[in-house]
Amino acid sequence: MLTAAYTGDSTIAIAEAEPQAPDAGQVQIRVSYVGLCGTDLHILHGSMDARVQTPLVFGHEMSGTIAAVGAGVDGWDVGDAVTVMPLDWDGTCPACLAGNQHICQNLDFIGIDSPGALQALWNVPAATLVALPAGIALDAAALVEPVAVAVHDVRRSEVAPGEKAVVIGGGPIGVLIATVARAFGAEVAVIELDPNRRAQIEALGFATLDPRETDQVAWMEEWTAGAGADVVFEVSGAAAAVLGATALAKVRGTIVVVAIHPTPREIDLQRVFWRELRLLGARVYQRTDFERAVELVADGTIPSAVLISKIVPLSETRAAFDDLQGGRAMKVLVDVQAGQPA
Amino acid sequence: MLTAAYTGDSTIAIAEAEPQAPDAGQVQIRVSYVGLCGTDLHILHGSMDARVQTPLVFGHEMSGTIAAVGAGVDGWDVGDAVTVMPLDWDGTCPACLAGNQHICQNLDFIGIDSPGALQALWNVPAATLVALPAGIALDAAALVEPVAVAVHDVRRSEVAPGEKAVVIGGGPIGVLIATVARAFGAEVAVIELDPNRRAQIEALGFATLDPRETDQVAWMEEWTAGAGADVVFEVSGAAAAVLGATALAKVRGTIVVVAIHPTPREIDLQRVFWRELRLLGARVYQRTDFERAVELVADGTIPSAVLISKIVPLSETRAAFDDLQGGRAMKVLVDVQAGQPA
Repeated sequence: MLTAAYTGDSTIAIAEAEPQAPDAGQVQIRVSYVGLCGTDLHILHGSMDARVQTPLVFGHEMSGTIAAVGAGVDGWDVGDAVTVMPLDWDGTCPACLAGNQHICQNLDFIGIDSPGALQALWNVPAATLVALPAGIALDAAALVEPVAVAVHDVRRSEVAPGEKAVVIGGGPIGVLIATVARAFGAEVAVIELDPNRRAQIEALGFATLDPRETDQVAWMEEWTAGAGADVVFEVSGAAAAVLGATALAKVRGTIVVVAIHPTPREIDLQRVFWRELRLLGARVYQRTDFERAVELVADGTIPSAVLISKIVPLSETRAAFDDLQGGRAMKVLVDVQAGQPA
Repeated sequence: MLTAAYTGDSTIAIAEAEPQAPDAGQVQIRVSYVGLCGTDLHILHGSMDARVQTPLVFGHEMSGTIAAVGAGVDGWDVGDAVTVMPLDWDGTCPACLAGNQHICQNLDFIGIDSPGALQALWNVPAATLVALPAGIALDAAALVEPVAVAVHDVRRSEVAPGEKAVVIGGGPIGVLIATVARAFGAEVAVIELDPNRRAQIEALGFATLDPRETDQVAWMEEWTAGAGADVVFEVSGAAAAVLGATALAKVRGTIVVVAIHPTPREIDLQRVFWRELRLLGARVYQRTDFERAVELVADGTIPSAVLISKIVPLSETRAAFDDLQGGRAMKVLVDVQAGQPA
């Protein structure tokens, strides 16, 4: 079978590998589609070299069907359509013992810390499987993982029906957060610099604004009758966005930090104090987020067709990353079976 | 009567003024003691000149007895011992309508935005009065306001009995937060640079550490068996403390921003994300905090004798500020009646 692996130095190797039978407690998945995301880009650019061991078969957003079931695995059959919640926790650290296994202090994030889905036959712990309902399109189902991120972010924000939320940064995760927050009953606006993205987002029915053209604080005051946003999602990763985010939130409002900020960022703590703001980190997801994400993809709440810009065979993984990097695509999927030796 | 007023330019004027009868809805308080705090220092140094109108009779931590009752005021009698919750909200802004009157978007903080307690006879809205129990020492009762700040901070942290909290900054508010958190059942350590303050704090039964001598992260790891603190209170106002605070908190831990940070501060958002931390602003207090603070002062939980470094007559207010500024005192009270004309 063909695999796509990061081998260091911004390089992806498409290589032949021998499939392995699943160990006890594992299942083997025939991978259908793998979505490429910002974290994969970070890996490719070497930003995570201190963490990853090369060669790394990466990819962690996926759909597929079960090809084989290892010893001791109950409840799953060959042919079942599945996705994977790619988290493997130790169960013994203080975070796990406190019930926060999803952010285990020694978390194995499958596809980053151990081999991922860019391979035709992929073995994973059975505990990571999430069932897909009959009839779900497997390309759309490859969006379940990023949708689960969005569900987690929105749940963490505790946004309530009728409340107003603003998403800073209209990339794939920003659009998913906007979509999920709306599905939870919020009114949502998106702040985004890129006019093409703004047009796409407006076509999905969201208000948008360009903070270089519109005074975002004045806009927010007007939109919320002087109160400020109930929830601000910081998804841009930009220093200026972080510094401005506190001015958008209402008294006792919530700012959710979704983006990765590799270096410390300046925050207006005077405003945090003055309005008793709440700033929350949100990372990955819990099983309930994955299950809700499956529902939202299956029932069409997630606009899969708009989000999936392109589907390429595994051999073109490198070019797909270039499209992502250049901002020419929202979400690119790799069709892992296309072009594989029979 | 004598009053102490900030007149601009780092100057305090001790001046004679004519007492006014209380308006309808007001009571007149014969002020006993007024505590001086960091905010008063900020006023004196001109940092709040954009906000205050001079001459400003300042002071907002106090105790006293009712001298006269204005028209339409029920439930209060001449001679009642009282303190004042110095907040006057508009009741109509979005924050008030959402139940957060204490951080009203147009809050009048009495003693900053309107005349305060450094005058022998002080008129305040009856709604701001908080009853003091029989037998409470009126000097200790002047601590109720800062204790209410501490109660608010601790309540906002949601620290639970048996949890571990660390207070960064062992000044008056830091010590009060440590004391209140302990009264709420937490184990508390205090990070403080000044050796004299550390000695005082250790004498009160708290663990302390000097972050220049001890690796505070390693110390925290050991103290919490690898978990990190449940709650971190940032009371120092120092940029380095803010940057280091995120490394002290457990997965899903809470950081409460108590100190005033006049300029934006760098925060390790990567850590906020990675551990799903929660950062909360906490400002002033609600009535329940004041009532709890009265109890904690009255029952001796608050070590008033240790905290009150000095009591001076109103004519020496300026020298008292110099003592505070120089770090030679935890808390200085002004005895407003001492030396007043009969």
